[in-house]
Amino acid sequence: MLKRLGKQTIVLENAPRILSWAGVAGKKEGEGPLKNELDFISEDSYFGEQTWEKAESHMLQRCFSIACDRAGLSPSSLDFILAGDLLNQCVSSSFAMKDSNAPYLGLYGACSTMAESLSLAAMLIDGGYAGTACAITGSHFCSAERQYRFPLEYGGQRPPTAQWTVTGAGAVILGKSGGSLRITQLTAGKIVDAGIDDANSMGSAMAPAAYDTLRAHFDDAGRGPADYDAIFTGDLGALGHDILEDLFRGDGIELGPRYMDCGVLIYDADKQDVNAGGSGCGCCAAVLASHILPAMERGLWKRVLFSATGALLSATSAQQGSSIPGICHALVIERED
Amino acid sequence: MLKRLGKQTIVLENAPRILSWAGVAGKKEGEGPLKNELDFISEDSYFGEQTWEKAESHMLQRCFSIACDRAGLSPSSLDFILAGDLLNQCVSSSFAMKDSNAPYLGLYGACSTMAESLSLAAMLIDGGYAGTACAITGSHFCSAERQYRFPLEYGGQRPPTAQWTVTGAGAVILGKSGGSLRITQLTAGKIVDAGIDDANSMGSAMAPAAYDTLRAHFDDAGRGPADYDAIFTGDLGALGHDILEDLFRGDGIELGPRYMDCGVLIYDADKQDVNAGGSGCGCCAAVLASHILPAMERGLWKRVLFSATGALLSATSAQQGSSIPGICHALVIERED
Repeated sequence: MLKRLGKQTIVLENAPRILSWAGVAGKKEGEGPLKNELDFISEDSYFGEQTWEKAESHMLQRCFSIACDRAGLSPSSLDFILAGDLLNQCVSSSFAMKDSNAPYLGLYGACSTMAESLSLAAMLIDGGYAGTACAITGSHFCSAERQYRFPLEYGGQRPPTAQWTVTGAGAVILGKSGGSLRITQLTAGKIVDAGIDDANSMGSAMAPAAYDTLRAHFDDAGRGPADYDAIFTGDLGALGHDILEDLFRGDGIELGPRYMDCGVLIYDADKQDVNAGGSGCGCCAAVLASHILPAMERGLWKRVLFSATGALLSATSAQQGSSIPGICHALVIERED
Repeated sequence: MLKRLGKQTIVLENAPRILSWAGVAGKKEGEGPLKNELDFISEDSYFGEQTWEKAESHMLQRCFSIACDRAGLSPSSLDFILAGDLLNQCVSSSFAMKDSNAPYLGLYGACSTMAESLSLAAMLIDGGYAGTACAITGSHFCSAERQYRFPLEYGGQRPPTAQWTVTGAGAVILGKSGGSLRITQLTAGKIVDAGIDDANSMGSAMAPAAYDTLRAHFDDAGRGPADYDAIFTGDLGALGHDILEDLFRGDGIELGPRYMDCGVLIYDADKQDVNAGGSGCGCCAAVLASHILPAMERGLWKRVLFSATGALLSATSAQQGSSIPGICHALVIERED
């Protein structure tokens, strides 16, 4: 018997537990709404390193180290590390984990990586292939800007639809037992190409993928938004958030105030100049680890639908005039009473 | 009970079956030893497209399509596609699969991607999370050269230790039943950094990772080389092949003639000017799908250890003077009598 509901949803009969988490970020993110929730805030955009790429790697290492310490696990005792990032060839993850001495599976899900890594980690534990596994990702504003757009020194203008790549990272360690939070279902996303080709409007490129996966989740699981205390998307930003609401409205479904986007939550839109909000792998990773999971543990929400969207473009594909396909993976996280 | 042997090896109790495979390559590869085994050879390095990046994507699509046809499966009937490549942000895979309408998990394992994607696909099927899954990867000489090294027009010289990125792709579809070949064990690799920083000597950067994973496999499984009819590495090339033999010799183990490297097998070293041999995600993917699996089915080998190594560098990490960490994942493929 397959452990599946419908076409895309997996039921995790053994409900892997969340053993620990850590959220780390940069100065700007540390001045926003999460300032009292992040585990570490670096005042230095270089995190003490010589380049922004090495800074991103350093940030991931720091985040990983805090999560391992909290779970009381040495890095080398982990059965799997699942990691990825936005840098070419995912070097910030591989360099961050190169001395971990644990089996390593590199992923590329763009900004959906936190949900992809958690999904795979959850199945590996649920299926008995791992006793413990760490899902980790992050992004850095400065390394992303110069890779995808312009050197920071150029001081380019940004349209209102543009988002701000979060300097931040999140790590979550899963295990077979322990802790009050568990992952009970997941819905793996298909690639959805809505034909958007404006690299300064990621929210509109990714919202159709979020709709596709959340719609599949509700259909597969026989649930609706009201079955969740809170529903999160990863980094659609203010524009993408509203597009997703509109897409569901077309089905006669109101997502309502229980629906929030991590790209909206991570900055103070009135005071911080971030246009449409936060983006990047690190956006929902840091919000999950520093805001969502602690709030669930405290009792604020009992059942949460956490999803993350990725825009599957490169600077080359954008220059060649290709569209920006999106993808979204979603997980159900529940607190056990 | 964990389905694990030792620290890194997984036992697949349900032994997922290999339902179909396909191997596709470019003109140069089509003039080599695999010329009569490949499913499709393109005389045109653009595969009919306008850019090499789009050519790489086209090649992956073609390979995927052949594998689906052979398995009698429509792309959208697949429960998972696991794919990755060498291009920045893995765009050749995501654009190739964007219309598949199947759940998609993007991977980045550099040239270890064929083994990583097969490993994850095998666990997802073994555990009941998928009924069918496709593992696919590929690489293209022209897109890789201009991304990692120099524009082809520059006509740069290459040292004897350099390898030639294979223009090729391989796809394997796994399922719960059917076919005579099955995956029985896998060993997931750790990142190994031997301190090599010469991007023109990938074989020496990756051989220590191959040693680490194969050594772990033999230790975990209580086996030695003689328990396998054939042992393959992905793309160590002639130099890396010999380094791996030497590393095992240090343990008093002779790998012997049963040990072969796909980067050595794919070209005719005497007639084709490829220096130390083939490399790239597509190297072992094409050799697996066009040479190894068909030979196993014909009865040449009964139990094969297939491993693939990846060099976890980017052009930026190389320019910043970082070393080149390696990784290797391995799988046991067996023919059922």
